[in-house]
Amino acid sequence: MVNKENLTMLTDFYEITMANGYLLSGMKDDIAYFDMFFRRIPDRGGYAIMAGVEQVVDYLDNLEFTDEDIEYLRSKNSFCEEFLDYLKNFKFECDVWSVPEGTPIFPHEPLVTVRGPVIQAQFVETMILLVINHQSLVATKSNRIVRAAQGRPVMEFGSRRAHGTAAAIFGARASYIAGCCGTACTISDRDYDIPALGTMAHSWVQMFPDEYTAFKKYAEIYPQNCILLVDTYNVLKTGVPAAIKVFKELKPAKMGIRIDSGDIAYLTKRARRMLDEAGLEDCSITISNSLDEYIIRDVIFEGAKIDAFGVGERLITAMSEPVFGGVYKLSALEKNGKIIPKIKISENVEKITNPGFKTLYRLYDKESHKALADVMTLDGETIPEVDGYEIFDPNAIWKKKKLDNFYVKNLRVQLFKHGKRVYDCPPIEEVKKYCADQMETLWEETLRFENPQTYYVDLSRKLWNVKNQLIEEHNAK
Amino acid sequence: MVNKENLTMLTDFYEITMANGYLLSGMKDDIAYFDMFFRRIPDRGGYAIMAGVEQVVDYLDNLEFTDEDIEYLRSKNSFCEEFLDYLKNFKFECDVWSVPEGTPIFPHEPLVTVRGPVIQAQFVETMILLVINHQSLVATKSNRIVRAAQGRPVMEFGSRRAHGTAAAIFGARASYIAGCCGTACTISDRDYDIPALGTMAHSWVQMFPDEYTAFKKYAEIYPQNCILLVDTYNVLKTGVPAAIKVFKELKPAKMGIRIDSGDIAYLTKRARRMLDEAGLEDCSITISNSLDEYIIRDVIFEGAKIDAFGVGERLITAMSEPVFGGVYKLSALEKNGKIIPKIKISENVEKITNPGFKTLYRLYDKESHKALADVMTLDGETIPEVDGYEIFDPNAIWKKKKLDNFYVKNLRVQLFKHGKRVYDCPPIEEVKKYCADQMETLWEETLRFENPQTYYVDLSRKLWNVKNQLIEEHNAK
Repeated sequence: MVNKENLTMLTDFYEITMANGYLLSGMKDDIAYFDMFFRRIPDRGGYAIMAGVEQVVDYLDNLEFTDEDIEYLRSKNSFCEEFLDYLKNFKFECDVWSVPEGTPIFPHEPLVTVRGPVIQAQFVETMILLVINHQSLVATKSNRIVRAAQGRPVMEFGSRRAHGTAAAIFGARASYIAGCCGTACTISDRDYDIPALGTMAHSWVQMFPDEYTAFKKYAEIYPQNCILLVDTYNVLKTGVPAAIKVFKELKPAKMGIRIDSGDIAYLTKRARRMLDEAGLEDCSITISNSLDEYIIRDVIFEGAKIDAFGVGERLITAMSEPVFGGVYKLSALEKNGKIIPKIKISENVEKITNPGFKTLYRLYDKESHKALADVMTLDGETIPEVDGYEIFDPNAIWKKKKLDNFYVKNLRVQLFKHGKRVYDCPPIEEVKKYCADQMETLWEETLRFENPQTYYVDLSRKLWNVKNQLIEEHNAK
Repeated sequence: MVNKENLTMLTDFYEITMANGYLLSGMKDDIAYFDMFFRRIPDRGGYAIMAGVEQVVDYLDNLEFTDEDIEYLRSKNSFCEEFLDYLKNFKFECDVWSVPEGTPIFPHEPLVTVRGPVIQAQFVETMILLVINHQSLVATKSNRIVRAAQGRPVMEFGSRRAHGTAAAIFGARASYIAGCCGTACTISDRDYDIPALGTMAHSWVQMFPDEYTAFKKYAEIYPQNCILLVDTYNVLKTGVPAAIKVFKELKPAKMGIRIDSGDIAYLTKRARRMLDEAGLEDCSITISNSLDEYIIRDVIFEGAKIDAFGVGERLITAMSEPVFGGVYKLSALEKNGKIIPKIKISENVEKITNPGFKTLYRLYDKESHKALADVMTLDGETIPEVDGYEIFDPNAIWKKKKLDNFYVKNLRVQLFKHGKRVYDCPPIEEVKKYCADQMETLWEETLRFENPQTYYVDLSRKLWNVKNQLIEEHNAK
């Protein structure tokens, strides 16, 4: 069972102030387009991972103002009765497009586009940003950590340091999409099919007279998955010897030890030797102590003997950079069926928005299936799959490149059509697999932790012209 | 209305594995004591702020395993039927003590203590840590930011960058307790009485032909609170002039401008002069652009003309250090009514736990009412309010200090007695006021952002003896 809390009122207060304002200005049915996009990849990485779409769909599908909400808003003495009536009879009427979950994404791309009555398209800003920013942040960080582990399983263990309950639940979900093999968070398993894992804390060991007794009891109860925590007192002097004794006596089907403190490289090498000398080559070693991609890379480099990682606080909070800076900007108006592109100017070139209603394409090499570039176009434009197609850097248009032997994919799907949900969110296993497959389309140069190559995100000539014209019009004022 | 989602299953899987194990080991009714404490103050600060107690109380008061939960657990094929029956008839029987919300707290203090059947006292670990860690993190960060603003109001604007919905809702709550004057998060107002605030986004301005038209429309609709966003195009050339024109024409009751980008010090000084020259000395200036305590301190130092701050991502994620590292450790067992202290040893002295069932006292100076020291004692000990009471550094016992003219307060309250709630969580305004009052008891030296004085957190002689004896017994093994 998933608790579908009504989160309609989880919105910045100004969304409501503006909504009431649009209604009173006779603009409530004016059609507007908003894009969600981000400007910087966390951790100076080369890519991010899209996540949270399913929760956005749920939110939009359940938008509803209860009598209590209306009463609450009336009590603020700021909103007119006509507006409160509008909310009472609220019916979501927008079109929504989005990049599917698990897709590698890049700065400036329209990840989500909402088209509809401005009063509505504006209102949903807060939750779209909140959900996509959070899950994409954790998915991106998790994917880095998983890649650092080089094929060894990574488990998400961070609930206790998550920023509230939803951060634990959906952080587990995002990390699973991005490559983790499971979570410690039980409710994420019950509600979102993320496999939950976990065996014992130090307190289990402390509750018994000694480690041997604690381990033996555990092995008797859980012979199918007997991972013993060996660092309550002293890993090498007491923990590992007690575990070995129990494993040899009881021969559990699955044996492992977990070390949660100390010098990982040293302890795992020594523990591995002790286990091997006891004939317990099958016994796995799991590590879990303030890990992230950098520490994991380092201990593997140092030759630590590790079979699996449990990663907590640095994953669930994306500690090294805990903000995914997605924004939600007006990109166009629609009057009498005609789309009027809008732009937000800034002195900082990178902060000027891409105007208009856009389509986002990804171009893949026909042989290697690697992603070559993403191209934004105006809606309705297509990209011909012909040799010699020219892309150019939108901020330095003399930098051109001709592409041959490629195919084109429209990167986005439609989620809502005139307020009606038209998208079935795929099962989590499918999303996870899609993410892994899409990661295969990225070049090594983009995946690097340090100084990755910047992936091309370009504009079609038409879109670039529209943008440039708006900039020039603005400067002429 | 507060959505009371049943979060019983938001628990690390190993809590359930251990619970089933305790039952099968005949230990389910063994009485254990667990302490929640933290070891390091984020941002190398001198104090932290306790928050989240109300949500912990709600969680514990609503612990319940539904049929669906039981069915889910059965499907894992790891738990015995006797255990599933136990969960079905689960009744919370623990005693719980806690430091009240809004209290300044320090490392190693038992912030929460849970006493009860080990199977239960262990089970609640994940949520107690998750909730207190999250809200204390945000309260602590917010308090720093509020102090940097030196009396100017600080509003919490971070929902869109929060780590999920609960982080937005309860982050707003924690920040309000710690000194913010309100939030952008509407649902936190509806459900937790945190005043919600907000006027307009850039898109409002973009929806009209020009700033003057956009501002005028807004001022007509909201004359009582007319804060205009002046940086959509150019703050000084177009934004502020348009705002001045509208303010002079319509004379709204409350006038203000908000600047969300650019060089804060320069723009606010220039804007202030323009407003004053137009006779609009009453018009306030609000700033909101990736702020934190360091930037706020700097721009005030630089002479920026700011009346209020809106702080978003760096507050709601506690960006500079997004982890509050609270842990939950076994501190004692109880056999035949006798408490047996337990200790967790570590090579790192700071990581050795404080054993036993403890009381936490704070000693205040009778004249200044400043907090002099906190002292942990064994339960039942009192601290005599007599001159010459000696405290000592538990890690360097030759460092002693005699205290005169002080009074003593037991810092904790009981929340649950044999599973029954015995504590009424105070209204949020009371918590907020309590926090502000308690902050007054700290010395300037503790409040410093850089290199604060370490506040004394000591052990009574008796508790120190118990701890030391356990360490020596352990070393003798």
